[in-house]
Amino acid sequence: MKKLINAADRVVKDALEGLGAAHPELRVDVANQVVYRADSPVSGKVALVSGGGAGHEPLHGGFVGAGMLDAACPGEVFTSPVPDQMLAATKGVDGGAGVVHVVKNYTGDVMNFQLAAEMAADEGVKVESVLVNDDVAVEDSLYTAGRRGTGATLFVEKIAGALAEKGADLASVAAVARKVNERSRSFGIALTSCTTPAAGKPNFDLPDDEIELGIGIHGEPGRTRVKLTSAAEITKVATDAIFDDYPFDKGDKALVMVNGMGGTPLIELYVVFNEVAKELAAHGAEVTRSLVGDYVTSLDMAGCSITLCKLDDELTELWDAPVKTPALRWGV
Amino acid sequence: MKKLINAADRVVKDALEGLGAAHPELRVDVANQVVYRADSPVSGKVALVSGGGAGHEPLHGGFVGAGMLDAACPGEVFTSPVPDQMLAATKGVDGGAGVVHVVKNYTGDVMNFQLAAEMAADEGVKVESVLVNDDVAVEDSLYTAGRRGTGATLFVEKIAGALAEKGADLASVAAVARKVNERSRSFGIALTSCTTPAAGKPNFDLPDDEIELGIGIHGEPGRTRVKLTSAAEITKVATDAIFDDYPFDKGDKALVMVNGMGGTPLIELYVVFNEVAKELAAHGAEVTRSLVGDYVTSLDMAGCSITLCKLDDELTELWDAPVKTPALRWGV
Repeated sequence: MKKLINAADRVVKDALEGLGAAHPELRVDVANQVVYRADSPVSGKVALVSGGGAGHEPLHGGFVGAGMLDAACPGEVFTSPVPDQMLAATKGVDGGAGVVHVVKNYTGDVMNFQLAAEMAADEGVKVESVLVNDDVAVEDSLYTAGRRGTGATLFVEKIAGALAEKGADLASVAAVARKVNERSRSFGIALTSCTTPAAGKPNFDLPDDEIELGIGIHGEPGRTRVKLTSAAEITKVATDAIFDDYPFDKGDKALVMVNGMGGTPLIELYVVFNEVAKELAAHGAEVTRSLVGDYVTSLDMAGCSITLCKLDDELTELWDAPVKTPALRWGV
Repeated sequence: MKKLINAADRVVKDALEGLGAAHPELRVDVANQVVYRADSPVSGKVALVSGGGAGHEPLHGGFVGAGMLDAACPGEVFTSPVPDQMLAATKGVDGGAGVVHVVKNYTGDVMNFQLAAEMAADEGVKVESVLVNDDVAVEDSLYTAGRRGTGATLFVEKIAGALAEKGADLASVAAVARKVNERSRSFGIALTSCTTPAAGKPNFDLPDDEIELGIGIHGEPGRTRVKLTSAAEITKVATDAIFDDYPFDKGDKALVMVNGMGGTPLIELYVVFNEVAKELAAHGAEVTRSLVGDYVTSLDMAGCSITLCKLDDELTELWDAPVKTPALRWGV
């Protein structure tokens, strides 16, 4: 294992300390592993909290800031944060208008966020929980009942965060978050495994000439393994899987993310983006907003995921609203 | 070789087509491999053009847009663009106030940009050429006489681009570009080699337990190979090399980039950033601006580079000025 780390058991805390040092607009509680907007709680604003295992950076700490998350709590690598972290985050950001939990559909995250929500309610904080389950590759998985939550998490956090920033109430923010999830679908492809610092060796074996279609963000098994083929053919498998589940037709407008898994260079992501745009065009749909880069990663895995969200005017306007976070920033 | 591509000889063109599809604020001439600001030429504004081999994305195409470059011309992977591309870019963006060429110090780039500048002058376009040579690791190298140009290129393009956007004249824009280069230093570390699509195998061999200190962005040899050690020790080698050449002392303010080489996950870059901040603090200097992510890459190489620029009020203000490009965006 070759990693730029000090020790396997210090990776998350060292990285959090670095995040705080790099971004003065954040307040990072390294000991408890919570990343806050420096100006939180924002009085009267609905707050958004998310979290999950580390190893998917910039998700979620890199999405904390004005117009997106109020706090994020990372667990250890590929391990759910504990309810106490989520409770601290929830209480720390509540400005009196309630808190939305954005929860990716993994059993540990779901259970721990539910406990945290109950504890917060006991202390008088209103919490609405929104489940993200956009990955069409498989039903049920290594850590999931139902579909996994992957790339759409970013869309949910950005768009619901924008509505919260505008002063909407708790029910409205939760509703738009659910709407984004309902209109979003993802599919991932792995060219290689990933290596967690603690394990020190690849999570799974993938032969030199094979790729895994429908991979999860922790290397959970996908649909099938096939021989490595062209970017065009790989992309078509992914977009067909999405279209089978949720068609994009003439006149539909898509927010498209081609997301790198951590070990794939940007030049390849643009090659894939080009194929996605062609597939959408073949259905009469068009790309109206896009994101190409590493946003929801799996440590050093080579590969990518494709996430499509069907935009309407409301979602487009909220997507375009100002955001100021380490990983997504515009308008400010 | 596992890559998300269609064919080795189509990578650059496919990626450029994807870049154009993803970013309507750009105009991409795929056939001639030139990326333009869609609104270029901007009348009366000094224009900035850069370019170099592909494989370092988002450099340079991802830095085209308001407040940064007016055009970029990528060559094939790790291969200089030809003078005709540079000439087309230069003529295409000249708004009557002249053009600054930002040239990384590699023999091919320097020679071709010089030819392009002469051809442009023959056609009545004033060109000022600015050489970037920030890499302190080695003097002379595989493709370079003198020092290599690496991470500071981004700083030069951002800061000079901001001054051009404010309406400064050609001499002033070139002068601030040179000032940024003079005040910036870089040092890179490779954990693995990179694999070009055309070669299909790693550029060089690096044993499983060794890293290369002072690596170049095409895998050119660095200073030495050592056993893999902690992020703290690796960072200290890099920052000591920089401080030996260009001290940072009490009260100095630093713009710090911890740049991923393409195959290293963000969580590790933040671990390294944390160590850089500590090293600067040990010298009494402080981080006042920062950038952590993949900006000047070497395809799928694992590793990172550290670039420090000593800021003053002028450079800080220009760094903070609005920029709207695919890879760097704020204020708009």
